[in-house]
Amino acid sequence: MEPFSLRLQERIRTFDTRVCLGIDPRPERHPATHPGGFEGDPASVARAVVAYFRAILESTSDLVACVKLQSAFFERLGIPGLIAMAQLLADAKNLGLPVILDAKRGDIGESSAAYADAYLRSGVFAADALTVNPYLGRDALAPFARAAFENGRCIFVLVKTSNPGSSDLQDAVLAHGQVPLWQKAAAMVDELAAEFGPEGTFGPVGAVVGGTHPEDLATARRLLPRSVLLVPGYGAQGAGARDVAAAFLADGSGAVVAASRSLTYATAGEDFAAVAAAKAREMRDELNVALTT
Amino acid sequence: MEPFSLRLQERIRTFDTRVCLGIDPRPERHPATHPGGFEGDPASVARAVVAYFRAILESTSDLVACVKLQSAFFERLGIPGLIAMAQLLADAKNLGLPVILDAKRGDIGESSAAYADAYLRSGVFAADALTVNPYLGRDALAPFARAAFENGRCIFVLVKTSNPGSSDLQDAVLAHGQVPLWQKAAAMVDELAAEFGPEGTFGPVGAVVGGTHPEDLATARRLLPRSVLLVPGYGAQGAGARDVAAAFLADGSGAVVAASRSLTYATAGEDFAAVAAAKAREMRDELNVALTT
Repeated sequence: MEPFSLRLQERIRTFDTRVCLGIDPRPERHPATHPGGFEGDPASVARAVVAYFRAILESTSDLVACVKLQSAFFERLGIPGLIAMAQLLADAKNLGLPVILDAKRGDIGESSAAYADAYLRSGVFAADALTVNPYLGRDALAPFARAAFENGRCIFVLVKTSNPGSSDLQDAVLAHGQVPLWQKAAAMVDELAAEFGPEGTFGPVGAVVGGTHPEDLATARRLLPRSVLLVPGYGAQGAGARDVAAAFLADGSGAVVAASRSLTYATAGEDFAAVAAAKAREMRDELNVALTT
Repeated sequence: MEPFSLRLQERIRTFDTRVCLGIDPRPERHPATHPGGFEGDPASVARAVVAYFRAILESTSDLVACVKLQSAFFERLGIPGLIAMAQLLADAKNLGLPVILDAKRGDIGESSAAYADAYLRSGVFAADALTVNPYLGRDALAPFARAAFENGRCIFVLVKTSNPGSSDLQDAVLAHGQVPLWQKAAAMVDELAAEFGPEGTFGPVGAVVGGTHPEDLATARRLLPRSVLLVPGYGAQGAGARDVAAAFLADGSGAVVAASRSLTYATAGEDFAAVAAAKAREMRDELNVALTT
Protein backbone atom coordinates (compact mmCIF):
# COMPACT_ATOMS: atom_id res chain seq x y z
CA MET A 1 0.00 0.00 0.00
CA GLU A 2 1.17 3.51 -0.74
CA PRO A 3 2.40 5.23 2.43
CA PHE A 4 -0.15 7.25 4.38
CA SER A 5 1.74 10.53 4.07
CA LEU A 6 1.75 10.29 0.26
CA ARG A 7 -1.89 9.22 0.07
CA LEU A 8 -2.80 12.15 2.27
CA GLN A 9 -0.89 14.66 0.12
CA GLU A 10 -2.62 13.27 -2.95
CA ARG A 11 -6.04 13.68 -1.41
CA ILE A 12 -5.16 17.24 -0.34
CA ARG A 13 -4.28 18.02 -3.96
CA THR A 14 -7.08 16.07 -5.65
CA PHE A 15 -9.91 17.39 -3.52
CA ASP A 16 -8.24 20.68 -2.53
CA THR A 17 -9.18 20.13 1.10
CA ARG A 18 -7.19 20.15 4.32
CA VAL A 19 -10.03 19.18 6.62
CA CYS A 20 -9.66 16.20 8.97
CA LEU A 21 -13.15 15.12 10.00
CA GLY A 22 -13.17 14.24 13.69
CA ILE A 23 -15.52 11.49 14.86
CA ASP A 24 -16.18 11.81 18.61
CA PRO A 25 -19.39 9.85 19.15
CA ARG A 26 -21.77 11.37 21.68
CA PRO A 27 -24.91 9.34 21.09
CA GLU A 28 -26.86 11.50 23.53
CA ARG A 29 -26.76 14.22 20.84
CA HIS A 30 -28.22 12.09 18.07
CA PRO A 31 -31.67 12.97 16.77
CA ALA A 32 -34.23 10.85 18.63
CA THR A 33 -35.85 9.74 15.42
CA HIS A 34 -32.63 8.50 13.81
CA PRO A 35 -32.85 4.79 12.89
CA GLY A 36 -31.31 2.69 15.62
CA GLY A 37 -31.25 5.78 17.84
CA PHE A 38 -30.34 6.06 21.52
CA GLU A 39 -32.42 3.44 23.35
CA GLY A 40 -30.13 2.98 26.30
CA ASP A 41 -28.65 -0.49 25.89
CA PRO A 42 -25.01 -0.52 24.77
CA ALA A 43 -25.48 -2.59 21.61
CA SER A 44 -28.22 -0.38 20.19
CA VAL A 45 -26.29 2.76 21.12
CA ALA A 46 -23.29 1.39 19.25
CA ARG A 47 -25.45 0.57 16.22
CA ALA A 48 -26.80 4.12 16.28
CA VAL A 49 -23.23 5.47 16.35
CA VAL A 50 -22.30 3.44 13.27
CA ALA A 51 -25.42 4.49 11.35
CA TYR A 52 -24.96 8.15 12.28
CA PHE A 53 -21.32 8.41 11.29
CA ARG A 54 -21.65 6.15 8.26
CA ALA A 55 -24.11 8.70 6.88
CA ILE A 56 -21.65 11.51 7.63
CA LEU A 57 -18.71 9.65 6.06
CA GLU A 58 -20.75 9.22 2.88
CA SER A 59 -21.87 12.85 2.74
CA THR A 60 -18.38 14.27 3.38
CA SER A 61 -16.03 11.83 1.65
CA ASP A 62 -15.05 14.25 -1.15
CA LEU A 63 -14.83 17.24 1.18
CA VAL A 64 -12.26 16.00 3.68
CA ALA A 65 -8.65 14.87 3.40
CA CYS A 66 -8.95 12.27 6.13
CA VAL A 67 -10.93 11.15 9.14
CA LYS A 68 -9.94 10.99 12.80
CA LEU A 69 -11.66 8.63 15.23
CA GLN A 70 -11.42 9.62 18.91
CA SER A 71 -10.94 6.28 20.64
CA ALA A 72 -12.07 7.51 24.07
CA PHE A 73 -15.69 7.89 22.97
CA PHE A 74 -15.75 4.36 21.54
CA GLU A 75 -14.05 2.83 24.59
CA ARG A 76 -16.66 4.55 26.77
CA LEU A 77 -19.32 2.41 25.05
CA GLY A 78 -17.60 -0.85 26.04
CA ILE A 79 -17.30 -3.89 23.77
CA PRO A 80 -20.14 -2.75 21.44
CA GLY A 81 -18.39 0.61 21.12
CA LEU A 82 -15.16 -1.06 20.04
CA ILE A 83 -17.04 -3.16 17.50
CA ALA A 84 -18.55 0.11 16.22
CA MET A 85 -15.06 1.58 15.94
CA ALA A 86 -13.90 -1.42 13.89
CA GLN A 87 -16.95 -1.04 11.63
CA LEU A 88 -16.35 2.67 11.03
CA LEU A 89 -12.66 1.97 10.32
CA ALA A 90 -13.81 -0.49 7.64
CA ASP A 91 -16.44 1.92 6.28
CA ALA A 92 -13.91 4.73 5.92
CA LYS A 93 -11.49 2.38 4.18
CA ASN A 94 -14.22 1.33 1.72
CA LEU A 95 -14.79 5.00 0.91
CA GLY A 96 -11.04 5.48 0.30
CA LEU A 97 -10.73 7.77 3.33
CA PRO A 98 -7.45 7.58 5.31
CA VAL A 99 -8.16 7.18 9.02
CA ILE A 100 -6.19 8.52 11.97
CA LEU A 101 -7.01 6.71 15.19
CA ASP A 102 -6.72 9.30 17.93
CA ALA A 103 -5.90 6.99 20.84
CA LYS A 104 -2.81 8.79 22.27
CA ARG A 105 -1.13 5.54 23.21
CA GLY A 106 2.33 5.29 24.73
CA ASP A 107 4.16 2.75 26.86
CA ILE A 108 7.58 1.19 27.23
CA GLY A 109 9.22 -1.24 24.80
CA GLU A 110 7.21 -4.41 24.41
CA SER A 111 3.96 -2.77 25.46
CA SER A 112 4.43 -0.05 22.83
CA ALA A 113 5.09 -2.83 20.31
CA ALA A 114 1.84 -4.53 21.37
CA TYR A 115 -0.09 -1.28 20.81
CA ALA A 116 1.63 -0.88 17.45
CA ASP A 117 0.56 -4.43 16.54
CA ALA A 118 -3.01 -3.57 17.47
CA TYR A 119 -3.28 -0.27 15.60
CA LEU A 120 -0.59 -0.08 12.91
CA ARG A 121 -0.27 -3.60 11.50
CA SER A 122 -3.30 -5.84 10.97
CA GLY A 123 -6.53 -6.77 12.72
CA VAL A 124 -9.87 -5.05 13.16
CA PHE A 125 -8.38 -1.96 14.82
CA ALA A 126 -5.65 -1.31 12.23
CA ALA A 127 -5.82 2.33 11.16
CA ASP A 128 -3.75 4.35 8.69
CA ALA A 129 -2.30 6.44 11.48
CA LEU A 130 -2.21 6.60 15.27
CA THR A 131 -1.63 9.43 17.72
CA VAL A 132 1.02 8.66 20.37
CA ASN A 133 2.34 10.34 23.54
CA PRO A 134 6.06 11.26 23.87
CA TYR A 135 6.40 11.48 27.68
CA LEU A 136 8.13 8.09 27.96
CA GLY A 137 10.89 9.03 25.52
CA ARG A 138 12.34 7.92 22.23
CA ASP A 139 12.70 4.20 23.01
CA ALA A 140 8.99 4.15 23.80
CA LEU A 141 8.11 5.81 20.47
CA ALA A 142 10.43 3.72 18.31
CA PRO A 143 8.22 0.59 18.10
CA PHE A 144 5.37 2.76 16.84
CA ALA A 145 7.57 4.50 14.26
CA ARG A 146 8.98 1.19 13.07
CA ALA A 147 5.53 -0.38 12.66
CA ALA A 148 4.32 2.70 10.78
CA PHE A 149 7.39 2.66 8.52
CA GLU A 150 7.10 -1.05 7.75
CA ASN A 151 3.38 -0.93 6.99
CA GLY A 152 2.97 2.32 5.08
CA ARG A 153 1.23 3.93 8.04
CA CYS A 154 1.95 6.98 10.16
CA ILE A 155 2.18 8.12 13.76
CA PHE A 156 1.35 11.59 15.02
CA VAL A 157 3.34 12.34 18.15
CA LEU A 158 1.79 14.84 20.59
CA VAL A 159 4.16 17.81 20.61
CA LYS A 160 2.09 20.83 21.66
CA THR A 161 -1.55 20.14 22.45
CA SER A 162 -4.46 22.56 22.06
CA ASN A 163 -5.71 22.66 25.67
CA PRO A 164 -4.85 25.45 28.17
CA GLY A 165 -3.13 22.90 30.45
CA SER A 166 -0.63 22.16 27.69
CA SER A 167 1.36 25.01 29.25
CA ASP A 168 1.94 23.03 32.49
CA LEU A 169 4.66 20.68 31.23
CA GLN A 170 4.96 21.36 27.49
CA ASP A 171 5.83 25.04 27.99
CA ALA A 172 8.25 24.46 30.87
CA VAL A 173 11.46 26.25 29.86
CA LEU A 174 14.57 24.08 29.81
CA ALA A 175 17.88 25.17 31.29
CA HIS A 176 19.66 23.97 28.18
CA GLY A 177 18.84 26.34 25.31
CA GLN A 178 16.07 28.17 27.18
CA VAL A 179 13.47 26.50 24.98
CA PRO A 180 10.15 25.05 26.09
CA LEU A 181 9.93 21.30 26.60
CA TRP A 182 7.70 20.84 23.57
CA GLN A 183 10.57 21.95 21.34
CA LYS A 184 12.75 19.22 22.82
CA ALA A 185 9.90 16.80 22.07
CA ALA A 186 9.83 18.19 18.52
CA ALA A 187 13.57 17.57 18.14
CA MET A 188 13.08 13.98 19.32
CA VAL A 189 10.26 13.55 16.81
CA ASP A 190 12.42 14.92 14.01
CA GLU A 191 15.23 12.49 14.90
CA LEU A 192 12.76 9.62 14.66
CA ALA A 193 11.43 11.01 11.40
CA ALA A 194 14.97 11.13 10.00
CA GLU A 195 15.62 7.55 11.13
CA PHE A 196 12.48 6.05 9.65
CA GLY A 197 11.54 8.44 6.87
CA PRO A 198 12.48 8.77 3.22
CA GLU A 199 14.71 11.66 2.16
CA GLY A 200 13.23 14.96 1.16
CA THR A 201 9.57 14.26 1.73
CA PHE A 202 7.07 13.60 4.48
CA GLY A 203 7.48 10.26 6.18
CA PRO A 204 5.76 8.01 8.72
CA VAL A 205 6.43 10.25 11.74
CA GLY A 206 4.06 13.22 12.06
CA ALA A 207 3.22 15.51 14.95
CA VAL A 208 0.22 17.01 16.71
CA VAL A 209 0.46 20.77 17.21
CA GLY A 210 -2.60 22.67 18.42
CA GLY A 211 -4.04 25.48 16.33
CA THR A 212 -4.72 27.47 19.47
CA HIS A 213 -1.03 28.54 19.60
CA PRO A 214 -0.33 30.17 16.17
CA GLU A 215 3.25 31.22 16.98
CA ASP A 216 4.15 27.75 18.22
CA LEU A 217 2.62 26.31 15.08
CA ALA A 218 4.96 28.36 12.88
CA THR A 219 7.94 27.27 14.98
CA ALA A 220 6.85 23.63 14.87
CA ARG A 221 6.50 23.76 11.07
CA ARG A 222 10.15 24.88 10.93
CA LEU A 223 11.41 22.32 13.48
CA LEU A 224 9.60 19.39 11.83
CA PRO A 225 10.42 19.47 8.09
CA ARG A 226 9.75 15.73 7.66
CA SER A 227 6.47 15.60 9.57
CA VAL A 228 2.90 16.03 8.48
CA LEU A 229 1.19 18.13 11.16
CA LEU A 230 -2.18 17.23 12.61
CA VAL A 231 -3.69 20.45 13.94
CA PRO A 232 -6.54 20.24 16.48
CA GLY A 233 -8.29 23.16 18.13
CA TYR A 234 -10.21 24.55 15.15
CA GLY A 235 -13.79 25.66 15.68
CA ALA A 236 -15.17 24.64 19.05
CA GLN A 237 -11.78 25.17 20.76
CA GLY A 238 -11.34 28.64 19.28
CA ALA A 239 -8.70 28.55 16.53
CA GLY A 240 -9.63 30.13 13.20
CA ALA A 241 -8.38 29.64 9.64
CA ARG A 242 -5.71 32.36 9.95
CA ASP A 243 -4.44 30.81 13.19
CA VAL A 244 -3.71 27.48 11.56
CA ALA A 245 -2.31 28.73 8.23
CA ALA A 246 1.25 28.54 9.58
CA ALA A 247 1.00 24.73 9.68
CA PHE A 248 1.19 24.53 5.87
CA LEU A 249 4.02 24.79 3.40
CA ALA A 250 3.79 27.48 0.73
CA ASP A 251 2.18 24.97 -1.66
CA GLY A 252 -0.62 24.22 0.83
CA SER A 253 0.66 20.76 1.73
CA GLY A 254 2.01 19.25 4.93
CA ALA A 255 -0.87 19.49 7.38
CA VAL A 256 -4.49 18.73 8.09
CA VAL A 257 -6.77 20.60 10.46
CA ALA A 258 -9.15 18.59 12.62
CA ALA A 259 -12.65 19.57 13.68
CA SER A 260 -15.21 17.31 15.30
CA ARG A 261 -18.27 18.66 17.08
CA SER A 262 -18.52 21.78 14.90
CA LEU A 263 -19.01 19.51 11.87
CA THR A 264 -20.77 16.42 13.14
CA TYR A 265 -23.02 17.83 15.87
CA ALA A 266 -23.90 21.20 14.36
CA THR A 267 -27.58 20.24 14.42
CA ALA A 268 -29.85 17.92 16.37
CA GLY A 269 -32.03 17.50 13.28
CA GLU A 270 -32.52 14.61 10.89
CA ASP A 271 -30.51 16.44 8.21
CA PHE A 272 -27.27 16.01 10.22
CA ALA A 273 -25.36 14.39 7.34
CA ALA A 274 -26.18 17.21 4.94
CA VAL A 275 -25.36 19.78 7.61
CA ALA A 276 -22.01 18.06 8.29
CA ALA A 277 -21.22 18.23 4.57
CA ALA A 278 -22.16 21.93 4.44
CA LYS A 279 -19.97 22.63 7.49
CA ALA A 280 -17.06 20.64 6.07
CA ARG A 281 -17.33 22.55 2.77
CA GLU A 282 -17.39 25.84 4.65
CA MET A 283 -14.32 24.86 6.70
CA ARG A 284 -12.51 23.64 3.57
CA ASP A 285 -13.14 26.96 1.87
CA GLU A 286 -12.16 29.04 4.92
CA LEU A 287 -8.85 27.21 5.14
CA ASN A 288 -8.20 27.61 1.42
CA VAL A 289 -8.94 31.33 1.52
CA ALA A 290 -6.61 31.78 4.50
CA LEU A 291 -3.86 29.97 2.59
CA THR A 292 -4.12 32.12 -0.51
CA THR A 293 -4.47 35.55 1.08
CA MET B 1 -17.16 0.98 48.34
CA GLU B 2 -14.14 1.69 50.48
CA PRO B 3 -11.59 3.76 48.54
CA PHE B 4 -8.90 1.87 46.64
CA SER B 5 -6.01 3.40 48.56
CA LEU B 6 -7.44 2.21 51.90
CA ARG B 7 -8.32 -1.24 50.57
CA LEU B 8 -4.79 -1.55 49.25
CA GLN B 9 -3.21 -0.54 52.58
CA GLU B 10 -5.41 -3.09 54.33
CA ARG B 11 -4.32 -5.86 52.01
CA ILE B 12 -0.67 -4.86 52.46
CA ARG B 13 -1.12 -5.20 56.23
CA THR B 14 -3.33 -8.30 56.23
CA PHE B 15 -1.25 -10.38 53.84
CA ASP B 16 2.08 -8.63 54.53
CA THR B 17 2.76 -8.34 50.81
CA ARG B 18 3.68 -5.41 48.57
CA VAL B 19 3.65 -7.33 45.30
CA CYS B 20 1.56 -6.10 42.36
CA LEU B 21 1.06 -9.03 39.99
CA GLY B 22 1.40 -7.82 36.40
CA ILE B 23 -0.71 -9.54 33.75
CA ASP B 24 0.82 -9.00 30.29
CA PRO B 25 -0.69 -11.77 28.17
CA ARG B 26 1.70 -13.30 25.65
CA PRO B 27 -0.23 -16.38 24.54
CA GLU B 28 2.71 -17.53 22.43
CA ARG B 29 4.42 -18.43 25.73
CA HIS B 30 1.61 -20.60 27.06
CA PRO B 31 2.19 -24.35 27.39
CA ALA B 32 0.88 -26.01 24.23
CA THR B 33 -1.10 -28.52 26.23
CA HIS B 34 -2.89 -25.97 28.36
CA PRO B 35 -6.69 -26.25 28.03
CA GLY B 36 -7.90 -23.84 25.38
CA GLY B 37 -4.27 -23.27 24.36
CA PHE B 38 -2.90 -21.25 21.47
CA GLU B 39 -4.70 -22.47 18.35
CA GLY B 40 -4.29 -19.36 16.29
CA ASP B 41 -7.79 -17.93 15.96
CA PRO B 42 -8.40 -14.83 18.09
CA ALA B 43 -11.34 -16.17 20.09
CA SER B 44 -9.53 -19.32 21.21
CA VAL B 45 -6.38 -17.34 21.99
CA ALA B 46 -8.43 -15.02 24.17
CA ARG B 47 -10.06 -18.00 25.94
CA ALA B 48 -6.59 -19.43 26.60
CA VAL B 49 -5.50 -16.10 28.08
CA VAL B 50 -8.45 -16.08 30.47
CA ALA B 51 -7.87 -19.70 31.55
CA TYR B 52 -4.13 -19.13 32.02
CA PHE B 53 -4.42 -16.01 34.14
CA ARG B 54 -7.50 -17.18 36.04
CA ALA B 55 -5.37 -20.08 37.30
CA ILE B 56 -2.61 -17.64 38.30
CA LEU B 57 -5.06 -15.27 40.03
CA GLU B 58 -6.35 -18.17 42.09
CA SER B 59 -2.88 -19.47 43.02
CA THR B 60 -1.54 -16.03 44.00
CA SER B 61 -4.53 -14.24 45.52
CA ASP B 62 -3.19 -14.31 49.11
CA LEU B 63 0.37 -13.51 48.03
CA VAL B 64 -0.15 -10.23 46.20
CA ALA B 65 -1.52 -6.84 47.25
CA CYS B 66 -3.10 -6.14 43.89
CA VAL B 67 -3.10 -7.01 40.21
CA LYS B 68 -2.15 -4.89 37.19
CA LEU B 69 -3.53 -5.64 33.74
CA GLN B 70 -1.43 -4.28 30.84
CA SER B 71 -4.08 -3.13 28.38
CA ALA B 72 -1.75 -3.17 25.34
CA PHE B 73 -1.54 -6.97 25.31
CA PHE B 74 -5.33 -7.32 25.45
CA GLU B 75 -5.91 -4.66 22.76
CA ARG B 76 -3.45 -6.52 20.53
CA LEU B 77 -5.87 -9.47 20.55
CA GLY B 78 -8.73 -7.38 19.18
CA ILE B 79 -12.34 -7.67 20.32
CA PRO B 80 -11.84 -11.15 21.89
CA GLY B 81 -8.85 -9.75 23.78
CA LEU B 82 -10.96 -6.96 25.25
CA ILE B 83 -13.65 -9.45 26.25
CA ALA B 84 -10.88 -11.45 27.96
CA MET B 85 -9.77 -8.29 29.77
CA ALA B 86 -13.33 -7.71 31.03
CA GLN B 87 -13.51 -11.33 32.20
CA LEU B 88 -10.22 -11.12 34.10
CA LEU B 89 -11.33 -7.84 35.69
CA ALA B 90 -14.43 -9.67 36.94
CA ASP B 91 -12.42 -12.69 38.08
CA ALA B 92 -10.02 -10.54 40.10
CA LYS B 93 -12.95 -8.70 41.67
CA ASN B 94 -14.56 -12.00 42.68
CA LEU B 95 -11.30 -12.98 44.39
CA GLY B 96 -11.24 -9.65 46.27
CA LEU B 97 -8.16 -8.51 44.39
CA PRO B 98 -7.89 -4.77 43.61
CA VAL B 99 -7.07 -4.24 39.93
CA ILE B 100 -4.99 -1.49 38.36
CA LEU B 101 -5.63 -1.16 34.64
CA ASP B 102 -2.31 -0.13 33.11
CA ALA B 103 -3.62 1.67 30.03
CA LYS B 104 -1.66 4.95 30.31
CA ARG B 105 -4.55 7.02 28.96
CA GLY B 106 -4.49 10.77 28.60
CA ASP B 107 -6.33 13.30 26.48
CA ILE B 108 -7.88 16.74 26.71
CA GLY B 109 -11.05 17.63 28.67
CA GLU B 110 -14.06 15.77 27.35
CA SER B 111 -12.00 12.93 25.91
CA SER B 112 -10.27 12.40 29.28
CA ALA B 113 -13.74 12.39 30.84
CA ALA B 114 -14.83 9.72 28.34
CA TYR B 115 -11.82 7.55 29.25
CA ALA B 116 -12.60 8.10 32.94
CA ASP B 117 -16.19 6.97 32.28
CA ALA B 118 -14.87 3.84 30.58
CA TYR B 119 -12.31 2.84 33.22
CA LEU B 120 -13.15 4.52 36.54
CA ARG B 121 -16.94 4.53 36.79
CA SER B 122 -19.05 1.60 35.60
CA GLY B 123 -19.22 -0.85 32.73
CA VAL B 124 -17.24 -3.95 31.80
CA PHE B 125 -13.88 -2.15 31.78
CA ALA B 126 -14.24 -0.45 35.17
CA ALA B 127 -11.10 -1.11 37.23
CA ASP B 128 -10.11 -0.04 40.72
CA ALA B 129 -7.32 2.15 39.37
CA LEU B 130 -5.99 3.43 36.05
CA THR B 131 -2.56 4.62 34.93
CA VAL B 132 -2.59 8.00 33.17
CA ASN B 133 -0.09 10.17 31.29
CA PRO B 134 0.67 13.74 32.47
CA TYR B 135 2.06 15.28 29.24
CA LEU B 136 -1.17 17.17 28.44
CA GLY B 137 -1.21 18.95 31.80
CA ARG B 138 -3.37 19.34 34.84
CA ASP B 139 -6.66 20.11 33.08
CA ALA B 140 -6.26 16.83 31.18
CA LEU B 141 -5.69 14.87 34.40
CA ALA B 142 -8.49 16.49 36.41
CA PRO B 143 -11.39 14.48 34.90
CA PHE B 144 -9.56 11.26 35.82
CA ALA B 145 -8.85 12.46 39.37
CA ARG B 146 -12.46 13.58 39.82
CA ALA B 147 -13.86 10.25 38.60
CA ALA B 148 -11.47 8.36 40.89
CA PHE B 149 -12.39 10.54 43.86
CA GLU B 150 -16.14 10.19 43.27
CA ASN B 151 -16.05 6.43 42.83
CA GLY B 152 -13.55 5.27 45.44
CA ARG B 153 -11.00 4.49 42.75
CA CYS B 154 -7.48 5.72 42.04
CA ILE B 155 -5.27 7.03 39.27
CA PHE B 156 -1.54 6.47 38.98
CA VAL B 157 0.05 9.32 37.04
CA LEU B 158 3.27 8.51 35.18
CA VAL B 159 5.95 10.61 36.84
CA LYS B 160 9.27 8.84 36.20
CA THR B 161 9.07 5.68 34.13
CA SER B 162 11.40 2.70 34.34
CA ASN B 163 12.72 2.64 30.75
CA PRO B 164 16.09 4.12 29.67
CA GLY B 165 14.30 6.60 27.36
CA SER B 166 12.59 8.12 30.39
CA SER B 167 15.66 10.36 30.51
CA ASP B 168 14.76 12.04 27.18
CA LEU B 169 11.99 14.32 28.42
CA GLN B 170 11.45 13.39 32.08
CA ASP B 171 15.03 14.19 33.08
CA ALA B 172 15.26 17.42 31.07
CA VAL B 173 16.44 20.06 33.56
CA LEU B 174 14.18 23.10 33.89
CA ALA B 175 15.50 26.65 33.96
CA HIS B 176 13.26 27.40 36.95
CA GLY B 177 14.69 25.61 39.98
CA GLN B 178 17.17 23.48 38.03
CA VAL B 179 15.01 20.41 38.64
CA PRO B 180 14.18 17.68 36.13
CA LEU B 181 10.81 17.83 34.42
CA TRP B 182 9.55 14.77 36.29
CA GLN B 183 9.73 16.72 39.54
CA LYS B 184 7.48 19.38 38.04
CA ALA B 185 5.12 16.57 37.03
CA ALA B 186 5.32 15.31 40.62
CA ALA B 187 4.40 18.75 41.95
CA MET B 188 1.40 18.82 39.60
CA VAL B 189 0.36 15.37 40.82
CA ASP B 190 0.64 16.46 44.45
CA GLU B 191 -1.53 19.53 43.75
CA LEU B 192 -4.18 17.25 42.28
CA ALA B 193 -3.81 14.88 45.22
CA ALA B 194 -4.34 17.78 47.63
CA GLU B 195 -7.41 18.93 45.68
CA PHE B 196 -9.10 15.55 45.55
CA GLY B 197 -7.69 13.67 48.49
CA PRO B 198 -8.56 13.40 52.16
CA GLU B 199 -6.30 15.04 54.76
CA GLY B 200 -3.38 13.13 56.21
CA THR B 201 -3.68 9.89 54.30
CA PHE B 202 -3.28 8.43 50.85
CA GLY B 203 -5.94 9.52 48.40
CA PRO B 204 -7.17 8.79 44.88
CA VAL B 205 -4.14 10.29 43.09
CA GLY B 206 -1.10 8.01 42.99
CA ALA B 207 2.04 8.03 40.88
CA VAL B 208 4.19 5.69 38.83
CA VAL B 209 7.91 5.89 39.64
CA GLY B 210 10.27 3.30 38.20
CA GLY B 211 12.34 1.14 40.53
CA THR B 212 15.27 1.39 38.15
CA HIS B 213 16.11 4.86 39.52
CA PRO B 214 16.51 4.37 43.32
CA GLU B 215 17.56 7.96 44.06
CA ASP B 216 14.62 9.36 42.13
CA LEU B 217 12.34 6.99 44.00
CA ALA B 218 13.46 8.41 47.35
CA THR B 219 12.92 11.95 46.06
CA ALA B 220 9.51 11.05 44.67
CA ARG B 221 8.46 9.51 48.00
CA ARG B 222 9.24 12.87 49.63
CA LEU B 223 7.54 15.00 46.92
CA LEU B 224 4.37 12.89 46.92
CA PRO B 225 3.21 12.47 50.53
CA ARG B 226 -0.44 11.89 49.54
CA SER B 227 0.24 9.39 46.74
CA VAL B 228 0.50 5.65 46.72
CA LEU B 229 3.44 4.78 44.47
CA LEU B 230 3.24 2.10 41.81
CA VAL B 231 6.80 0.94 41.15
CA PRO B 232 7.57 -0.94 37.93
CA GLY B 233 10.96 -2.21 36.84
CA TYR B 234 11.44 -5.04 39.34
CA GLY B 235 12.87 -8.31 38.09
CA ALA B 236 13.06 -8.50 34.31
CA GLN B 237 13.89 -4.78 34.03
CA GLY B 238 16.68 -4.99 36.58
CA ALA B 239 15.58 -3.37 39.84
CA GLY B 240 16.07 -5.38 43.03
CA ALA B 241 14.42 -5.29 46.45
CA ARG B 242 16.92 -2.81 47.87
CA ASP B 243 16.42 -0.51 44.89
CA VAL B 244 12.70 -0.17 45.52
CA ALA B 245 12.77 0.03 49.33
CA ALA B 246 12.80 3.83 49.20
CA ALA B 247 9.24 3.81 47.82
CA PHE B 248 7.83 2.79 51.21
CA LEU B 249 7.13 4.68 54.40
CA ALA B 250 8.85 3.48 57.57
CA ASP B 251 5.81 1.31 58.41
CA GLY B 252 6.07 -0.50 55.07
CA SER B 253 2.99 1.15 53.57
CA GLY B 254 2.50 3.52 50.66
CA ALA B 255 3.66 1.58 47.62
CA VAL B 256 3.37 -1.60 45.59
CA VAL B 257 6.03 -3.09 43.35
CA ALA B 258 4.95 -4.57 40.03
CA ALA B 259 6.41 -7.58 38.28
CA SER B 260 4.94 -9.39 35.31
CA ARG B 261 6.97 -11.81 33.19
CA SER B 262 9.23 -12.87 36.05
CA LEU B 263 6.15 -14.18 37.89
CA THR B 264 3.73 -15.30 35.20
CA TYR B 265 6.05 -16.64 32.51
CA ALA B 266 8.83 -18.10 34.65
CA THR B 267 8.15 -21.53 33.13
CA ALA B 268 6.69 -22.94 29.93
CA GLY B 269 5.44 -25.95 31.86
CA GLU B 270 1.98 -27.04 32.94
CA ASP B 271 2.75 -26.07 36.54
CA PHE B 272 2.81 -22.35 35.62
CA ALA B 273 0.23 -21.39 38.29
CA ALA B 274 2.18 -23.07 41.08
CA VAL B 275 5.43 -21.55 39.77
CA ALA B 276 3.81 -18.09 39.67
CA ALA B 277 2.75 -18.55 43.29
CA ALA B 278 6.26 -19.63 44.29
CA LYS B 279 7.79 -16.63 42.48
CA ALA B 280 5.27 -14.23 44.04
CA ARG B 281 6.04 -15.64 47.51
CA GLU B 282 9.77 -15.25 46.85
CA MET B 283 9.31 -11.64 45.68
CA ARG B 284 7.05 -10.85 48.65
CA ASP B 285 9.70 -12.15 51.03
CA GLU B 286 12.58 -10.36 49.28
CA LEU B 287 10.71 -7.07 49.55
CA ASN B 288 9.89 -7.65 53.20
CA VAL B 289 13.49 -8.51 54.04
CA ALA B 290 14.73 -5.37 52.28
CA LEU B 291 12.24 -3.29 54.28
CA THR B 292 13.31 -4.63 57.66
CA THR B 293 17.09 -4.63 57.26
